[in-house]
Amino acid sequence: MAHPMFVKHQDLLASAVHAIESRGCWSPYRDELADYGGEAAVEAGRKAFFEAYPDAQFYLDQPGFVGRGGGEVSPYGVTLNVSYPKCSADALIATAKAAVPTWAKAGPDVRAAVCAEALERLNASSIELAFATMHTTGQSFALAFRDAGPRAQERGLEAVACAWREMKHVPYRATWEKTRGSRTPLKLEKRYTVMPRGVALVYSCATAPTWGSYPGIFASLATGNAVVVKPHPEAILPLAITVAHIRQTLKDAGFDPDLASLLVDTAEAPVARDVALKSDIGIIDYAGRAEFGNWLEDNVRDALLFTEKPGVTCIVVDGASDYVAMLDNIALSLVTNSGQRRGTPQAILVSQQGIHTPSVTIPAERFGPDLARAIGRLVEDTATACELLGAIRSPATLAQLAALAETGETLRASEKIVHPQWPEAQVRTPLLLDVPADAGDVWMEEQLAPVAFVVATPTTAQSLAFAERAIREKGALALSIYSDNENIVQLAEEVSLRTGTTLAINLTGTVLANESIGLSDYRASGLNPAAHGCLGDAGFVAGRFVVVESYRNG
Amino acid sequence: MAHPMFVKHQDLLASAVHAIESRGCWSPYRDELADYGGEAAVEAGRKAFFEAYPDAQFYLDQPGFVGRGGGEVSPYGVTLNVSYPKCSADALIATAKAAVPTWAKAGPDVRAAVCAEALERLNASSIELAFATMHTTGQSFALAFRDAGPRAQERGLEAVACAWREMKHVPYRATWEKTRGSRTPLKLEKRYTVMPRGVALVYSCATAPTWGSYPGIFASLATGNAVVVKPHPEAILPLAITVAHIRQTLKDAGFDPDLASLLVDTAEAPVARDVALKSDIGIIDYAGRAEFGNWLEDNVRDALLFTEKPGVTCIVVDGASDYVAMLDNIALSLVTNSGQRRGTPQAILVSQQGIHTPSVTIPAERFGPDLARAIGRLVEDTATACELLGAIRSPATLAQLAALAETGETLRASEKIVHPQWPEAQVRTPLLLDVPADAGDVWMEEQLAPVAFVVATPTTAQSLAFAERAIREKGALALSIYSDNENIVQLAEEVSLRTGTTLAINLTGTVLANESIGLSDYRASGLNPAAHGCLGDAGFVAGRFVVVESYRNG
Repeated sequence: MAHPMFVKHQDLLASAVHAIESRGCWSPYRDELADYGGEAAVEAGRKAFFEAYPDAQFYLDQPGFVGRGGGEVSPYGVTLNVSYPKCSADALIATAKAAVPTWAKAGPDVRAAVCAEALERLNASSIELAFATMHTTGQSFALAFRDAGPRAQERGLEAVACAWREMKHVPYRATWEKTRGSRTPLKLEKRYTVMPRGVALVYSCATAPTWGSYPGIFASLATGNAVVVKPHPEAILPLAITVAHIRQTLKDAGFDPDLASLLVDTAEAPVARDVALKSDIGIIDYAGRAEFGNWLEDNVRDALLFTEKPGVTCIVVDGASDYVAMLDNIALSLVTNSGQRRGTPQAILVSQQGIHTPSVTIPAERFGPDLARAIGRLVEDTATACELLGAIRSPATLAQLAALAETGETLRASEKIVHPQWPEAQVRTPLLLDVPADAGDVWMEEQLAPVAFVVATPTTAQSLAFAERAIREKGALALSIYSDNENIVQLAEEVSLRTGTTLAINLTGTVLANESIGLSDYRASGLNPAAHGCLGDAGFVAGRFVVVESYRNG
Repeated sequence: MAHPMFVKHQDLLASAVHAIESRGCWSPYRDELADYGGEAAVEAGRKAFFEAYPDAQFYLDQPGFVGRGGGEVSPYGVTLNVSYPKCSADALIATAKAAVPTWAKAGPDVRAAVCAEALERLNASSIELAFATMHTTGQSFALAFRDAGPRAQERGLEAVACAWREMKHVPYRATWEKTRGSRTPLKLEKRYTVMPRGVALVYSCATAPTWGSYPGIFASLATGNAVVVKPHPEAILPLAITVAHIRQTLKDAGFDPDLASLLVDTAEAPVARDVALKSDIGIIDYAGRAEFGNWLEDNVRDALLFTEKPGVTCIVVDGASDYVAMLDNIALSLVTNSGQRRGTPQAILVSQQGIHTPSVTIPAERFGPDLARAIGRLVEDTATACELLGAIRSPATLAQLAALAETGETLRASEKIVHPQWPEAQVRTPLLLDVPADAGDVWMEEQLAPVAFVVATPTTAQSLAFAERAIREKGALALSIYSDNENIVQLAEEVSLRTGTTLAINLTGTVLANESIGLSDYRASGLNPAAHGCLGDAGFVAGRFVVVESYRNG
């Protein structure tokens, strides 16, 4: 008899597989707050959040308890001080390992359905997740809601759909019967079982804790692995809520909740490196800063490894059919989440031959000041500015921002905005600098602070060559091109294909070059240093399980 | 308009995809010599082979020519002395890299069809490939025909089918249209392109040069990569013939033949390590001895790596419904190809509680002598013995065989058989030794010589525990169990699932525990040290390509 969760979710899974093969706009998770109860629900959620969490002990019934830890401080100035159970990594791994055989035996349908159920419950908690994400990452509520809620859930479902499709390609059994002329046929009865690698480790980051980790968490669970989630010590809460939901779902489905656990550490006593090298870890997913990602790439031997690092996103400006719409889109991408969003454009390469528009060629030197004004328009109204910018998460980022001011000619200084509700929040507009193309040590370095560089180049072909060099050396997930000349767009497409970067062409409106939507967009490629592979494709899931065969004479 | 090769092969490709999803007995490549013209064709092929090859200069119009090399000696005593063009690895890689963009643009259908055409041509050359394999590996003609011909081609087609299926899951384009209440819908036009990693390197081994390398060669070509084939210096000819056919097929299909090339080196001046670390190598496939495989695993950083090493295959003997049929099957697996076949059973673990049969329990101490007699029956007739055993390929193997005689109590000594047609061939029957279970330094070490150890254990449960230890420490592709007790079979299945080894249950007849047939069997898993992954599944192909996306406002 089919598991009740599979009965409940099989149509959803089939639709999700259709979605990953057609890649249009489809999602079971609505992304308008109105669909979640609107302002009233947000207000109720805010109240509930501040009643539930500050100074609370987050409950997770995990093995290997050694004490409590935590101590997150909201970038909006609220001391959350939630404490989480700290558990020994060895205990979490050992318990997870012991739970794997039963989970493996449950088979692809049940596992995919349990994952879908967990995602449905997370979706119902999107407002709670939004507040948890807002007060750990510094994102504004509206952005946190979308990214930590439906957008993250879509990415999780995409991974489940990819995994389910691949596992369903494997038959349960086969009769192999070979005729041999007049002799008795050779006959074998074969059985095939999908088996997981074992225990997976997922690192979540401080800027997109759920969005960045759901693909790995759900890809590994769906393929029969257990998952230990190691959150960034400054953004634990969104993952604690996530793991709690997954554990409860596993339990309700009749499985061991220890298949998913939270490994909490502190900045003072980090465990991130130790745990990566433990021999029972079969898969590692990491999304975050290049430094630790590179360390994993250099040191992890036996585990399957997926890293995703921000790299340097370039925008090449050659021309525009609507100059102002281009400026507005670029400005919006720089302002959104104070550039702390992974892959925020950092270098804008403009040919000295000017910017071609249908009516005139705009002199290159006008571009920087025009972009500065476009940023100014976006942040003119304080309320809107705060919604877009959110708060700077880390004091280190502020220090970096101050230091960067000297590295180029200022096109627009970073301004401090006083948040009307949260006066302690560090709200800053992006710094816009003009730097020469040969200052690659500045504009080609991964900057975490909200800064963008306008880089003058001799020609657009040179701009593309500089962008390609940045991608090859530093990595990138995306490249953006503005041109009304299809030959130039074609050249950019060739750079994109060669380097494995998503190409955004002539974007206007509210879609950003560093956006990537689950069930439609393939994110990252593994063809440049920004990533080891791609989210949302077969390669992301297929190595997480193997097929083990047995056969006997038939 | 569809490419003519796709028109020709699209039905074959569809059938192959059906085969990998149903895993029954299907192959487009017949495996009876009668289907290739029988004895007359063999005779004609033999004559043609000896007219064409000894002392010949093998022609391959490759770039970077620096001289000629080769000098293979047949294990049957014929000095082949074929010389091959030696080309600079850098030149081969650079030319391959330059050819990739056009090959990538050709798309999945055309590439899969070109691979199918190359396999069809290789199939038509199966007799030639059989002689080339016989006179480099030492396999008898009959075995060489099957393994280097249809069996290798099936494995190649399986890889093509897996790759084609995965690439076809990716849509070419999508319209992403998001309704937003009363506002204008957001609309994006997206394009998705399958892109290869770049240049792939495939190492072929000296014992199964085509069988072991076709999966990697064809998986990489089908996914848009170029392939540099580095054959073992003592078994170049089968790969030279293979690469020549692939190059001609590429040319006939309108592509650059340098997408496939042969990198010849000599034992005196090996290039295997240098080339593995070159930055332009994106994928490496290796099948062969553990030593070099481990080196690759320790040293390769940036390339996607697939290794397959023999490890230690165990047979656990608990009981049998037909004792003699069991002995005959085990004996056949030891005799076939003098144990030089990858994964030949090496340790036969027998419980001291005896062997359960429907009528009586046979005392454990009878097993060794009975197996020795079963071997004796198989090699009694010299002609049959030579057909089964083939010739020992390497003098080192003979030396190892001599040294091993002292490591246990002899159950059956290795005999020298004089080959009626090839008196210089080193034909040897397998050595059968009795060793205690605690002599793991002998029976648990990967032995290349034709030797098997009968290992006495207290119970069958202990036998399974020893086998599991051997698999975990040394790796294995397969495990074989003989028992008429389904509870014991169940225990063995659990070991097999836990360790990712194919389980052969109560095999009798001519199917061997270390056999693995393309389009039906999944070979290797990556769950134990014998391999990094599995042949014939999505994980083997999916990482060889990525999806690169571009989008613009719609």
